[in-house]
Amino acid sequence: MSKNLTTRSEDYSKWYNELVVKADLAENSGVRGCMVIKPYGYAIWEKMQAELDRMFKETGHQNAYFPLFVPKSMFEAEEKNAEGFAKECAVVTHYRLKNDPDRPGKLMVDPNAKLEEELIVRPTSEAIIWSTYKGWVQSYRDLPLLINQWANVVRWEMRTRLFLRTAEFLWQEGHTAHATRQEAIEESERMMNVYADFAQNFMAIPVVKGLKTETERFAGAVETYCIEALMQDGKALQAGTSHFLGQNFAEAFDVKFATAEGKQEYVWGTSWGVSTRLMGALVMTHSDDQGLVLPPNLAPIQVVIVPIYKTDEQLDAISEAVATLSTDLKKLEVTVKFDNRTTQKPGFKFAEWELKGVPVRIAVGPKDLENGTFEVARRDTLTKETKSKDGIAVYVKELLEQIQIDLFDKAFEYRNSHITEVNDFEEFKEVLEGKGGFVSAHWDGTAETEDKIKDLTKATIRCIPLDAKEEQGTCVLTGNPSSKRVLFAKAY
Amino acid sequence: MSKNLTTRSEDYSKWYNELVVKADLAENSGVRGCMVIKPYGYAIWEKMQAELDRMFKETGHQNAYFPLFVPKSMFEAEEKNAEGFAKECAVVTHYRLKNDPDRPGKLMVDPNAKLEEELIVRPTSEAIIWSTYKGWVQSYRDLPLLINQWANVVRWEMRTRLFLRTAEFLWQEGHTAHATRQEAIEESERMMNVYADFAQNFMAIPVVKGLKTETERFAGAVETYCIEALMQDGKALQAGTSHFLGQNFAEAFDVKFATAEGKQEYVWGTSWGVSTRLMGALVMTHSDDQGLVLPPNLAPIQVVIVPIYKTDEQLDAISEAVATLSTDLKKLEVTVKFDNRTTQKPGFKFAEWELKGVPVRIAVGPKDLENGTFEVARRDTLTKETKSKDGIAVYVKELLEQIQIDLFDKAFEYRNSHITEVNDFEEFKEVLEGKGGFVSAHWDGTAETEDKIKDLTKATIRCIPLDAKEEQGTCVLTGNPSSKRVLFAKAY
Repeated sequence: MSKNLTTRSEDYSKWYNELVVKADLAENSGVRGCMVIKPYGYAIWEKMQAELDRMFKETGHQNAYFPLFVPKSMFEAEEKNAEGFAKECAVVTHYRLKNDPDRPGKLMVDPNAKLEEELIVRPTSEAIIWSTYKGWVQSYRDLPLLINQWANVVRWEMRTRLFLRTAEFLWQEGHTAHATRQEAIEESERMMNVYADFAQNFMAIPVVKGLKTETERFAGAVETYCIEALMQDGKALQAGTSHFLGQNFAEAFDVKFATAEGKQEYVWGTSWGVSTRLMGALVMTHSDDQGLVLPPNLAPIQVVIVPIYKTDEQLDAISEAVATLSTDLKKLEVTVKFDNRTTQKPGFKFAEWELKGVPVRIAVGPKDLENGTFEVARRDTLTKETKSKDGIAVYVKELLEQIQIDLFDKAFEYRNSHITEVNDFEEFKEVLEGKGGFVSAHWDGTAETEDKIKDLTKATIRCIPLDAKEEQGTCVLTGNPSSKRVLFAKAY
Repeated sequence: MSKNLTTRSEDYSKWYNELVVKADLAENSGVRGCMVIKPYGYAIWEKMQAELDRMFKETGHQNAYFPLFVPKSMFEAEEKNAEGFAKECAVVTHYRLKNDPDRPGKLMVDPNAKLEEELIVRPTSEAIIWSTYKGWVQSYRDLPLLINQWANVVRWEMRTRLFLRTAEFLWQEGHTAHATRQEAIEESERMMNVYADFAQNFMAIPVVKGLKTETERFAGAVETYCIEALMQDGKALQAGTSHFLGQNFAEAFDVKFATAEGKQEYVWGTSWGVSTRLMGALVMTHSDDQGLVLPPNLAPIQVVIVPIYKTDEQLDAISEAVATLSTDLKKLEVTVKFDNRTTQKPGFKFAEWELKGVPVRIAVGPKDLENGTFEVARRDTLTKETKSKDGIAVYVKELLEQIQIDLFDKAFEYRNSHITEVNDFEEFKEVLEGKGGFVSAHWDGTAETEDKIKDLTKATIRCIPLDAKEEQGTCVLTGNPSSKRVLFAKAY
């Protein structure tokens, strides 16, 4: 297989698009801005889903399902939220097609089937869910409501990119309701921590936990917590958000509860989500010029075994040795594939599995059989070694664990070396344009300064890190006083 | 808990709707025809999904995801399919809202954001998927494509009922492509068999496997296989369909492949699906006037334990005994809940868990502690017995297995006793209006007769059973010759 992959240094953006398509993760569809997630890509997404779902349930959440459509009047009830999404809404206006009298065999929208009220295809589900919660909450005994939904949502984006920004995407959205402000804040923080744990320990993607500024906050939220990752081109990617909604949606949808003392109070809310965007983060954190690099936790195939042979007898003997190894690996819960296609040569197979990011490749030929060895290659380091067949399954199992750790460490080191403290605006621009990454700088706390910096540099405040230390300084643009540094970056 | 459930004999339809809502399975939403699937109902659906997904993967299928929207020109490419769904299509015509100048704080559809081509919200995905397959298939080596999608679809229905008929519903849709006609037919049959196996052995719902008549066939299919179940009111419910599509979609979307001999041929297709409608089948097959009855395979909670006590000391002692039992049950992979709410009395809890269909209820009071016993009650038979604590966990595990079998047997007996052979039209109408169920009768094979019978009786041909034996007879309506009996019924 000839990969012909554009390299990162040639054209990072082209490299990304080619890799996503050639590694069989996703492709553009015949529908503007919408992608097809191919089986190999979807298998990775399923692994993310399974782990997140486990983590949500472990923290007391249950899944449910709410409608795809939101009537316009319901959508606009929480004004800030509605305004924030209004420009990206796909709108259903009719409910029937009919034969087009001018074009035999073709259809047209039936003008007699116009909806009385337009339906918005959900860009997010706070409106429909809070309108439902009104019926579910009467007393403090009904709280908290801890609910998650796996769903598709639509945000009409003008410029789209596979996984990173698509008109339709898949995600999960948690929506919780609480009796007290404190409990809701704790929930928002808990879910941000779940996301950070998932990104770092399952996807091997280091993240910074922080708060969004008012400008970058979710429309309708009081506070937005986020996890921010850093891609290999020095651009940041928002990998997940968790919102403390205060009583905004409870007020908009009149969701009140009777306290233990019999008082009527508005409910406190949170919402939190991650999406198929994480697939983009995965690709751009670990992959290289040979293609995809997958952390073993997310690899649909963790080990591929390629036979090297000339005669059928050789293949038979190899297949026998491989059968034993496969059985041993499966016992250790390692996902293994024996690539015994006769239509392709080993070199083609090596390139293909490299492109698809299989963490470990084992090759075995007649010489190996004689010597009782296997050739074991790591996808992440592109190194290989010859190992005795004795204890090989356990060795491979441990190697997979090591690769998972090494991938995180490598990304962590890259990320840490790309957080640069700067103290004046010239340096700010220089770092941003040169080295890239997060620029840690003082900011005077105003939206005006934030906007101006964005206009001048395209950098936004990715977050106010939760672990930012108190430090007297002066705003990198205005020189006004500031008490802590925030992280700026160009972002996806 | 006062259930106040309408009984089946009073008003079957009302009983169903009340049960679905009161057992916390689903409810109507503020969006016309769309339902909210509540956590308890969704947990049952998740169990169905997990088992089906396992069965699909075991038969070689992979999951993928295709766009929610289908451009109108793509949708109408396969004319029969398009015509079949045209009257139920939700249509997106605009992609933006704007502030309504006449209503401060409110939004309106932005007339400047009209789409050049309307987008249909998928009622089914053949069009979008076959337009994609065109790019995936070049040679016989690319076949078969064995792909499944878990998704939401929208069919604009005028009269909706929770789970049974909703404007939006959740389903899976398999879409496969094959090199030969024979292989595609075998795939359609394989998936019909997977559905039958799932319905009978997992959901305890007996089904008849058969073929649809041309009138009832899926729009765009050459042949539709189905599984038909019988509800307690004597009406049939189509529980799953599997379509042999011939080359219809390949021709419409120009999907050809090079054979091993280098010839260009159109690909053969199948599609198959089951939906949240199965939740309705589940409710109406097993439940009774006390509420939901769940087969243990589908129960989110298989065993509920209710303490009977007066003093805190008693509760402490009971809790200790229950902890041991719970641990033992969990080791046997039984899902168990200890309902130690202090806010509700045992009678309320009994009624609530009965309503929610928990298969086994265990009650334990001070007397039981003294005697070393538990009271074990079956939801399906509403019987109870006192069992020694020795070996109780294994006993309960086996009881759950027995309940699963008994529920199937009961439904199977009911179904079998409601297949009535009739030989003249008076008898046909009499059975249909009186006893109900499937009426097995000769039919002359014409759509005219089928339509006429439907007009006269509201009964449709549910299927031509695959195991129907050759038998000379005369059509129940026209007296024309017929070689096998088909199954008529009124249907959901």
